[in-house]
Amino acid sequence: MINFDQLAHQYNDELFNNIIPFWLDKSQDLENGGYFTCLNRTGEVYDTDKFIWLQGRQVWLFAMLYNNVEKREEWLQCAIQGAEFLKKYGHDGDYNWYFSLTKEGNPLVEPYNIFSYTFATMAFGQLSKATGNEEYAQIAKKTFEIILKKRFDTKGKWNKAFPGTRNLKGFSLPMILCNLALEIEHLLDKEVLDKTIKECLDEILNVFYKEEFGLILENVNVNGSFSDTFEGRLINPGHSLESMWFVMDLGVKLGRPDIIEKAVKITLKTIDYGWDKEFGGIFYFMDVKGHPTQQLEWDQKLWWVHIETLITLIKGYQLTGSQECLKWFEKVHEYTWSHFKDEQYPEWFGYLNRRGEVLLDLKGGKWKGCFHIPRGLFQCANILKKCK
Amino acid sequence: MINFDQLAHQYNDELFNNIIPFWLDKSQDLENGGYFTCLNRTGEVYDTDKFIWLQGRQVWLFAMLYNNVEKREEWLQCAIQGAEFLKKYGHDGDYNWYFSLTKEGNPLVEPYNIFSYTFATMAFGQLSKATGNEEYAQIAKKTFEIILKKRFDTKGKWNKAFPGTRNLKGFSLPMILCNLALEIEHLLDKEVLDKTIKECLDEILNVFYKEEFGLILENVNVNGSFSDTFEGRLINPGHSLESMWFVMDLGVKLGRPDIIEKAVKITLKTIDYGWDKEFGGIFYFMDVKGHPTQQLEWDQKLWWVHIETLITLIKGYQLTGSQECLKWFEKVHEYTWSHFKDEQYPEWFGYLNRRGEVLLDLKGGKWKGCFHIPRGLFQCANILKKCK
Repeated sequence: MINFDQLAHQYNDELFNNIIPFWLDKSQDLENGGYFTCLNRTGEVYDTDKFIWLQGRQVWLFAMLYNNVEKREEWLQCAIQGAEFLKKYGHDGDYNWYFSLTKEGNPLVEPYNIFSYTFATMAFGQLSKATGNEEYAQIAKKTFEIILKKRFDTKGKWNKAFPGTRNLKGFSLPMILCNLALEIEHLLDKEVLDKTIKECLDEILNVFYKEEFGLILENVNVNGSFSDTFEGRLINPGHSLESMWFVMDLGVKLGRPDIIEKAVKITLKTIDYGWDKEFGGIFYFMDVKGHPTQQLEWDQKLWWVHIETLITLIKGYQLTGSQECLKWFEKVHEYTWSHFKDEQYPEWFGYLNRRGEVLLDLKGGKWKGCFHIPRGLFQCANILKKCK
Repeated sequence: MINFDQLAHQYNDELFNNIIPFWLDKSQDLENGGYFTCLNRTGEVYDTDKFIWLQGRQVWLFAMLYNNVEKREEWLQCAIQGAEFLKKYGHDGDYNWYFSLTKEGNPLVEPYNIFSYTFATMAFGQLSKATGNEEYAQIAKKTFEIILKKRFDTKGKWNKAFPGTRNLKGFSLPMILCNLALEIEHLLDKEVLDKTIKECLDEILNVFYKEEFGLILENVNVNGSFSDTFEGRLINPGHSLESMWFVMDLGVKLGRPDIIEKAVKITLKTIDYGWDKEFGGIFYFMDVKGHPTQQLEWDQKLWWVHIETLITLIKGYQLTGSQECLKWFEKVHEYTWSHFKDEQYPEWFGYLNRRGEVLLDLKGGKWKGCFHIPRGLFQCANILKKCK
């Protein structure tokens, strides 16, 4: 019989006694502001470039803890110093957010990536709640407006797709917008909020989700139809599974059990499909027709995929009592803790090969920062506390 | 004692009785022209997109065989039909070469990639030799001129690097230009040829090659200095090793044994550095300081890396008598033939995991086409015939 209290304690303890101290101690650039995220196994900085995704996500995480756990000053100061760095150096003056900066804040990579904008919005939205600072609120609002404007042409001049031949749309943006809309609810007009949520839910559940596969596609034709191409056949099980807890949250907010039920159904189909029956763990990329993927890393096991899946499974159980969700939660929990947690040094590994062996022993890099692991531990701990 | 004649026969036989029939039979799109390159393990088409790199390379390969082996009509026709498709659909009218097309020839991805241009030049250069067709010669010349013009700003508006912060230059272009200059020697003014060769050799041997590491870097600062960044620390052993046979060829042409000796020295250092001491095979990417790479596929074993290395090692032995080159050739030969050749179906695998197990069982894809394996078998067979 599963002991929910004990598990809640385990997630909580890992968050506050391992993960959070690691990032507080190791990542803050007290000289220039912002955070180093390229940290090796023991937490030493091995590269000093600063990636806006990860800068924004770390601001968000510490502001979120301050808002939801405890008014701890060092958390707030950590979030504020990162936000000040972002405010000063992260954008071009018109809230077009670069992709990366040098440690001093000089722009390295142009603002081609819409997710730099979404994570900046999350950061300043959450921090405006923590501080009541009106400037932070305005940055979040303005950036969110730009995201909505750029929504159907996110890459601008950096788009390499020839116009008109094969117009696809991607799953990532509606997925993130679902979560983002709730994140900055306190800053949005109710009308904009309701419209965004409605559109995104419809895109996820009725357009990217395809009944004939029982799965969510990463890309579809702009008219919503299946594209039998590398992009169109692509399945990212971790992405699909992560999005399902965003959808469940919206189901709760809207009082729509039908949406929650559908999310649970998609979750169970996706985890069964994405689970590696030979070595365990969830694949990174798959082709819905079983063809070779373009992604050479397709069979790797990534930290964010597994921790996000844990949130979805335990939330699915909490909201519907699904025993299948609970069984899968136990299986993914066992795999995740025994493979990703580094028993010797702080924080977790991010990249394992198919067999679950460590592929890169970094604790942070260009894509892994202070986000998925702590957010996931926090979410799971809180849900587990409520489970019976 | 190594039997060179027998080995030469093995390489020759594999080329003409396995690889060439595969591509002649399976890849030609007789309806639309051009070639399908996304071919599964048994040679069936699993995706119909056409990538300009691979279209150009296949035209080159069949024209090269026609020029250097035998005037076989089916080889010439295969090259010509691909070239006609490229001529009609591959560029924007001004010889700006797209990256990919639909099977019918509609542009999919914009001309952002300079190597689409270099492989088009190779294709039309080699085919102009085979046919005497002046239009093909003009296409090669015009495209080569554009490459030289774009040389220091290859990506144009698609460049995502913020100007001025960290200006790097890459090893790929001077490396390919070394080979390309010889390829289209018959079309170039002697002055342009000599200047290009001189500049590229200098870049490779004195700028990208760093004595302090004994290795070639993939990227350096524009002033030639080491950049302690992800890009600057990157080593691509296969790239380095491939370029060394281009350099050896130039050493022969210029009558410069010093250049050949230096290429052999770099070759031996690189293969020792890049060889996986645990599982065998050559790593795909490494960090010169031993830090984690950004490339998740860093530990994979790729077909082109191994076959290109075989050319370099046997050429090094042929030109200098280096026993170390010969010993390494035998070791890489053994690994390559026992891991990449598919004993059950035609052609070779392209992508193995670190342990040498098949990662993707495709015979062709977005990057693997009719090029490295047949070129390598051809080169090795011819060199082995001359070895004693």
